[in-house]
Amino acid sequence: MKLLQVDTVAQAREKLKKAIQGLEVKVQELPVEDALGKVMAEDVHAEEDVPGFDRSTVDGYAVRSADTSGASENLPTILQVTGEVEMGCAPTHGIGPGECMYIPTGGMLPPGADAVVMVEYCELFSDMEIAVYASVPSGGNIVYRGDDLHSGRVALAKGTVLRPQEIGLLAALGKQRVQVVKPWEITIISTGDELIPPGGEMNPGKVRDINTYALQAVAKKTGLEVCGCHVLKDERDLLKETIWEAMRESDIVAVSGGSSKGRKDETASVIGELADGELLTQGLALKPGKPTILGYDASTETILLGLPGHPSAAMIVFQLLIGWLWEDRSGQKKSWPIPAELTVNIPAAPGRAVCQTVQLVRDEDGRRKAVPVFGRSGLISILTKADGYIMIPENQEGLKKGETVDVFLI
Amino acid sequence: MKLLQVDTVAQAREKLKKAIQGLEVKVQELPVEDALGKVMAEDVHAEEDVPGFDRSTVDGYAVRSADTSGASENLPTILQVTGEVEMGCAPTHGIGPGECMYIPTGGMLPPGADAVVMVEYCELFSDMEIAVYASVPSGGNIVYRGDDLHSGRVALAKGTVLRPQEIGLLAALGKQRVQVVKPWEITIISTGDELIPPGGEMNPGKVRDINTYALQAVAKKTGLEVCGCHVLKDERDLLKETIWEAMRESDIVAVSGGSSKGRKDETASVIGELADGELLTQGLALKPGKPTILGYDASTETILLGLPGHPSAAMIVFQLLIGWLWEDRSGQKKSWPIPAELTVNIPAAPGRAVCQTVQLVRDEDGRRKAVPVFGRSGLISILTKADGYIMIPENQEGLKKGETVDVFLI
Repeated sequence: MKLLQVDTVAQAREKLKKAIQGLEVKVQELPVEDALGKVMAEDVHAEEDVPGFDRSTVDGYAVRSADTSGASENLPTILQVTGEVEMGCAPTHGIGPGECMYIPTGGMLPPGADAVVMVEYCELFSDMEIAVYASVPSGGNIVYRGDDLHSGRVALAKGTVLRPQEIGLLAALGKQRVQVVKPWEITIISTGDELIPPGGEMNPGKVRDINTYALQAVAKKTGLEVCGCHVLKDERDLLKETIWEAMRESDIVAVSGGSSKGRKDETASVIGELADGELLTQGLALKPGKPTILGYDASTETILLGLPGHPSAAMIVFQLLIGWLWEDRSGQKKSWPIPAELTVNIPAAPGRAVCQTVQLVRDEDGRRKAVPVFGRSGLISILTKADGYIMIPENQEGLKKGETVDVFLI
Repeated sequence: MKLLQVDTVAQAREKLKKAIQGLEVKVQELPVEDALGKVMAEDVHAEEDVPGFDRSTVDGYAVRSADTSGASENLPTILQVTGEVEMGCAPTHGIGPGECMYIPTGGMLPPGADAVVMVEYCELFSDMEIAVYASVPSGGNIVYRGDDLHSGRVALAKGTVLRPQEIGLLAALGKQRVQVVKPWEITIISTGDELIPPGGEMNPGKVRDINTYALQAVAKKTGLEVCGCHVLKDERDLLKETIWEAMRESDIVAVSGGSSKGRKDETASVIGELADGELLTQGLALKPGKPTILGYDASTETILLGLPGHPSAAMIVFQLLIGWLWEDRSGQKKSWPIPAELTVNIPAAPGRAVCQTVQLVRDEDGRRKAVPVFGRSGLISILTKADGYIMIPENQEGLKKGETVDVFLI
């Protein structure tokens, strides 16, 4: 029985991380409206206060709060209306004791005022006078200049993933463009004499090419850019030449193949020849995912990845290694797993981690349950039935029914 | 004090759902590789069995399992090797008792064989003979024809969101194109004399246009397509004309404005004139989100939406109403909230639901905590500090510290 010196997922991650540690993070500049989902490559400082002036948060009357002290429904305070703040303009004058001005939501607070009474608590007596039926504390219904962001401060930090609210904040800061981490470019290569493209005619022994499509989609979902796809016959020279070509324009070259006799070793040896020195990893202590190969070439700055031929295993390994590396590299927050109660025991042999796919369901009481999706290795339909996966570490002999596990969505 | 007849979020949702119930779901056909994240508009049936033949899941020898019965490390069984299954080809012959054939992972099982022994448990004596050191049950290391998918069965149901694994499954079925739900097209209109675009120069009283950018991003994240954006001065005729133009090409027209004197009423009255009959909703019992207006025009099949001027409120209302409606309409599964323990009491007045933004953190023991992000209404930075929100229903008087709450990620 042949024993490979396999790595744990953590070891493989460390080796990858170390291999690329000298690489500069590539940056690209995008219009703010095209940056949704991208990762910020710079700290963005506020160059102006937001808001730029003290603003009312309601429609109402700008007042001196002291003037409203003690006002109630039974005992209103009468104030003199000296004018109106126009939206988008500086107030034409300030207010003195016993005076007030109408102010719309978002309007600029006039000098002398320190609060706004909501219009709902006021009654207009004449064009010149209102009754105020409630008191308002100093600062009431106002946001002050710089409450959102102070000029000079870091508004959004490097590594932030741009969600709609961050896009909004960039707009609030007057930014039209933003520096984001340039996605890695990846070439995907599938090898196998048996592969037939989706439209092609099937013959006995042939199978449809799944990995080219599944891995493209995983790469896109991870945030990478697919710069090329190749489906190759099983020929060593062709494979080597195609990988070498791809290394010149890609940050990652991922090769997945079935595993006909000797083919696995051949992919490993080709990657070994193209990578610097020896392979980083030659086998993962992970089920599924054992036949995983990692190499790195410094001259072209390319990660070389040999993936299992089974589509499910290839997708999971891609997510665990390249997905992790991209998050780590671009400084993103890790995503939140969903806790759920395991519905059955899951046995696992120590020495090898297990990535177990599960469905998430709610029982009658609304509790989250993780129901393992079992099936023979290599079935693609298992992943389509699953909502996520749980990891059983290599030093653990399985999980017990009723345990709370962390489900990572896929 | 003016009282509006406001709707709860649930009531507003029901009214929207009812308004559009007669509408046909629009469908578009996409190449499989471009369909990531889209929602399937058809059931996809398997037109061929997947796999199309009985396959080996390992590199090894195809055997009759009965021949290996009792084989062990100490007592191997000797079998005659009659040939090799070539990848991508039908086997040239079958095997009889005492015979075996080499078979690669993914290879087609030869007639007569009912199991595969992994190569790791075999030793080649000569070109013609192997010793087998382990027994294998019938069906061992095989996936049978149709194990993944049986021809004629539904492989992927309408309403499925296409993740990488579903893209892979479509490829496995030989599909090149897939019918997906055509995203709604939305026009976003921001109104206000005070609005300055990101590049523009600021003057006292002016504010940056945030909503056009934030709402575009929310719409895209929801899965919709933005077909137009307009930033308008506060002119009733211009607003009405712009909405009317947009209704001809959009499924949704969303208007957000600040709320200068009378402007809110004006947006409501313009939407009222353009919608069929009366408004669906004129105010939400939700904090933030009260000044929300909903209408529907059947002749152009357009949803008309008036949103609060505050960017955070506008984004939250958009997600709660339009995001919900799109998920419901396209038949998607609801996303999973993340349970977490509330770190402080949150008071809430009954009669109005509260959407409270929170940060998710882990304490020293790894427990998930939901830390409310408080701040004055209308600050955009609150949403950028938050990971998600929790909903306090309108019939509840707040939440207690230590309660487990469901956090919906934003």
